[in-house]
Amino acid sequence: MQIDLNCDYGEGFGGSHNGDDVTLLHSVTSANIACGAHSGDPDVMRRSVIQARELGVSVGAHPGFPDLQGFGRRMLLMSPSEITNSVLAQIGALYAIARAEGVTLSHVKPHGALYNYAAVTPAAAEAIVDAVAAFDPDLILIGLAGSRLVDAGHAAGLRVAHEAFGDRTYEADGTLRARHLPGAVIHDNNTALQQVIRMVQEGHVMAYDGTRVSIMADTICLHGDTPGASTRAARLRQGLIAVGVRVAPLTTIVSSNNRWRRSA
Amino acid sequence: MQIDLNCDYGEGFGGSHNGDDVTLLHSVTSANIACGAHSGDPDVMRRSVIQARELGVSVGAHPGFPDLQGFGRRMLLMSPSEITNSVLAQIGALYAIARAEGVTLSHVKPHGALYNYAAVTPAAAEAIVDAVAAFDPDLILIGLAGSRLVDAGHAAGLRVAHEAFGDRTYEADGTLRARHLPGAVIHDNNTALQQVIRMVQEGHVMAYDGTRVSIMADTICLHGDTPGASTRAARLRQGLIAVGVRVAPLTTIVSSNNRWRRSA
Amino acid sequence: MQIDLNCDYGEGFGGSHNGDDVTLLHSVTSANIACGAHSGDPDVMRRSVIQARELGVSVGAHPGFPDLQGFGRRMLLMSPSEITNSVLAQIGALYAIARAEGVTLSHVKPHGALYNYAAVTPAAAEAIVDAVAAFDPDLILIGLAGSRLVDAGHAAGLRVAHEAFGDRTYEADGTLRARHLPGAVIHDNNTALQQVIRMVQEGHVMAYDGTRVSIMADTICLHGDTPGASTRAARLRQGLIAVGVRVAPLTTIVSSNNRWRRSA
Amino acid sequence: MQIDLNCDYGEGFGGSHNGDDVTLLHSVTSANIACGAHSGDPDVMRRSVIQARELGVSVGAHPGFPDLQGFGRRMLLMSPSEITNSVLAQIGALYAIARAEGVTLSHVKPHGALYNYAAVTPAAAEAIVDAVAAFDPDLILIGLAGSRLVDAGHAAGLRVAHEAFGDRTYEADGTLRARHLPGAVIHDNNTALQQVIRMVQEGHVMAYDGTRVSIMADTICLHGDTPGASTRAARLRQGLIAVGVRVAPLTTIVSSNNRWRRSA
Repeated sequence: MQIDLNCDYGEGFGGSHNGDDVTLLHSVTSANIACGAHSGDPDVMRRSVIQARELGVSVGAHPGFPDLQGFGRRMLLMSPSEITNSVLAQIGALYAIARAEGVTLSHVKPHGALYNYAAVTPAAAEAIVDAVAAFDPDLILIGLAGSRLVDAGHAAGLRVAHEAFGDRTYEADGTLRARHLPGAVIHDNNTALQQVIRMVQEGHVMAYDGTRVSIMADTICLHGDTPGASTRAARLRQGLIAVGVRVAPLTTIVSSNNRWRRSA
Repeated sequence: MQIDLNCDYGEGFGGSHNGDDVTLLHSVTSANIACGAHSGDPDVMRRSVIQARELGVSVGAHPGFPDLQGFGRRMLLMSPSEITNSVLAQIGALYAIARAEGVTLSHVKPHGALYNYAAVTPAAAEAIVDAVAAFDPDLILIGLAGSRLVDAGHAAGLRVAHEAFGDRTYEADGTLRARHLPGAVIHDNNTALQQVIRMVQEGHVMAYDGTRVSIMADTICLHGDTPGASTRAARLRQGLIAVGVRVAPLTTIVSSNNRWRRSA
Repeated sequence: MQIDLNCDYGEGFGGSHNGDDVTLLHSVTSANIACGAHSGDPDVMRRSVIQARELGVSVGAHPGFPDLQGFGRRMLLMSPSEITNSVLAQIGALYAIARAEGVTLSHVKPHGALYNYAAVTPAAAEAIVDAVAAFDPDLILIGLAGSRLVDAGHAAGLRVAHEAFGDRTYEADGTLRARHLPGAVIHDNNTALQQVIRMVQEGHVMAYDGTRVSIMADTICLHGDTPGASTRAARLRQGLIAVGVRVAPLTTIVSSNNRWRRSA
Repeated sequence: MQIDLNCDYGEGFGGSHNGDDVTLLHSVTSANIACGAHSGDPDVMRRSVIQARELGVSVGAHPGFPDLQGFGRRMLLMSPSEITNSVLAQIGALYAIARAEGVTLSHVKPHGALYNYAAVTPAAAEAIVDAVAAFDPDLILIGLAGSRLVDAGHAAGLRVAHEAFGDRTYEADGTLRARHLPGAVIHDNNTALQQVIRMVQEGHVMAYDGTRVSIMADTICLHGDTPGASTRAARLRQGLIAVGVRVAPLTTIVSSNNRWRRSA
């Protein structure tokens, strides 16, 4: 009974900041660091890598669409080869900065619209997987649990981490309930905690309509861009530990979970 | 006895923010809005124009070096014609957005490294003046009091506003004391207020070495990028009003001050 | 019997060039100048405005998606208000530079993926129309003949120019035949000329399947990004004049054509 | 008697091109590929790496100031740590793309204003050296022969290649004659060839004033951005071979030259 906790980090650029809160890093085991395309200039990257290293948090690349103005949250219709090349350049940029700090990258998690696009589009998923596999097949790929992205990662032989959410409601088909629908976001900290505990201990989640949906969660996404985020993150972590769930690094989680999967 | 108060505004870009605080707008009469080169995407520009209009604050363009990563604070060795064209494009971008909101631009104040470069470099000062004069000779140009930029503006027949600082110490030659030297920044609110009052009422400032230096101040720069900035700004404004100084828009200030200057 | 001929121009950025060929300007009556988002830095803009002015070519804004890497040819899912603000900023940037050269903008033609998106998407079309109308309702809007963009322009009371193509084949429903299909591009100069003559003189075009399709053409797009483009453009212009078609500026065309339309 | 020949390559971005001529690659042994900051998007990078690999040309990183509009030719006053981080991110981006093509980077040569700045400024030179050494101390650093950059590289224990020019005149102090002075550029191909032959065979160059100046040349820069560049490059290569100079890869040159230097 173990789980990784991840958060996005280093999402500022130049004189602008997005309210990175180093306190949040105290609660996670993995940090996804922006690589300069949707945010994250080289100085922000280096500072973020140092902060993660000091707290023993694993560092991963967080590539997004090259759309600084839209913060990578707007769909940009790149071709598969354009996606592969952009993701390669982004991973490489962070890799070099991490290397200068003696830090090895552990994982890759696409950002925003690229994450969502790859979750449902095989060609985009494969384009990202191509980049990860070509750069370093030991990198763990984080994708939405049950999505095309994790499928593509598995198919290419990558280690894959299925990501789930404590603060989002699921539909009966296992997809996330769209944000604009009522009940899509779980604001109550205890409800979110119970949802994560059920995912980890029982391998399922209660969908919005009451259906019980199987879900495989290797890592939980902790959002950092709302007020009180670091406090909520700390409580979730404590709540998990209190019921006996071990909060562990992705490398531990994925190898053991993947092993279990293979036997399943 | 009157003075304009100005602040920089709208200095965010994309998903990143620089902590714009609309409260600060309550204390000023002029807002200098970033135009997309060092910060300020079109959506931030529009939101900022609307906020300024709602509070009756004059809107001006705040062009900077095209260096988003460096926030326009790093010297970029552009040629005079490159500066002119960049400043034109930046003024035009804000002009169009302001026009859509029924707002007329009142002034132009260069940002950061461009402001400092033009303060001491006639060719850069003239390049900026060329852009302002070519676009609209009715725009008021804000520059460091006594600098090459205001000289160039006067020479070209522009209306010019001399900018002074309440929270910075001056040297005996009228320049700002460099930030890295001791005593360069005035942290005490009352000391800053007294410096501004003396500038406005007596036309001079006490330099770091005790020398009495003549200074002509049409507008005071209120910094917004430090904690407590809006509170400090409100106190300065109140303090000025309390001693009978009128806080008035730039258009009023400059025409009357300029008239007085001509007769001097 | 008259027609405007337009081309895109000024689509270089920084040390890179896209092979702008000033010779092409000799054949057109309208130049659509890139405004810095998909291409066109301020120096390229100024140079392009000067070249157009010297040849008596009307200058228009050519706004595109803010995607320099993709040259504005990739769909970027901006919201309507983001489109409006971006188009405003782009028009304004060119407006300011043109004003410094004593040139008044005559028209706006969206670029690439934005042009195509607005051709079929009412919300995007209206977002562009909002920007044009808010900035200057006297600007002529160029859109694909019969598209949602020209519809939105008409609905808002703008003067609208319907654009048609000599070197592209049409389908029976009046849309352009997709580029990846056989016969989509007309390579033979004489065939292209005959298609344009028929559009202007008879108001229709022969579709790929032989159907006769009504089309209203105010302006013909001359592509400049292929080898021999300026020679082809010159021949088209000469061919039109030889059969008695007058090549005239957009302002002349649109007012007279629109008048004719109203009576139709 | 051997020399490396290098050229800049892959300096296009998005829809814009800088006239990359693959023919030029036939004459060189090393290609310096732009890394996205002053030019070179990920797709251009990948295409350039493939072209170099196919012709057996060594691939190196060509980092520049992050100034796309100025093509990295304008001085940007970055701090040493900003330079280090930017150079790291640029090397990393190209490294990742090269790795996907099975290509190992052989060298790093700074571009334009960064190259010139580092040639005369120890802090900037050390900032670049820090990046190279932290990323991979086996990378060869190319700098202007006799400059601060090569000094800093030697001091840090890097393998360093001294770069010299066939088409530029030297001053008596070993610096390049400034471009705006008469006689700065050597237009005659044979004169350029003789200058390079003398550098390689005799270890000196005739300065503009006739002085004989010692110069150590490991690699010659072949400019690609002028008409006829690839023809000139081919002739230089043939001319060198004709007199018995071996045109050899940088790795061969530097190790043997460095050995010779140590014994000198």
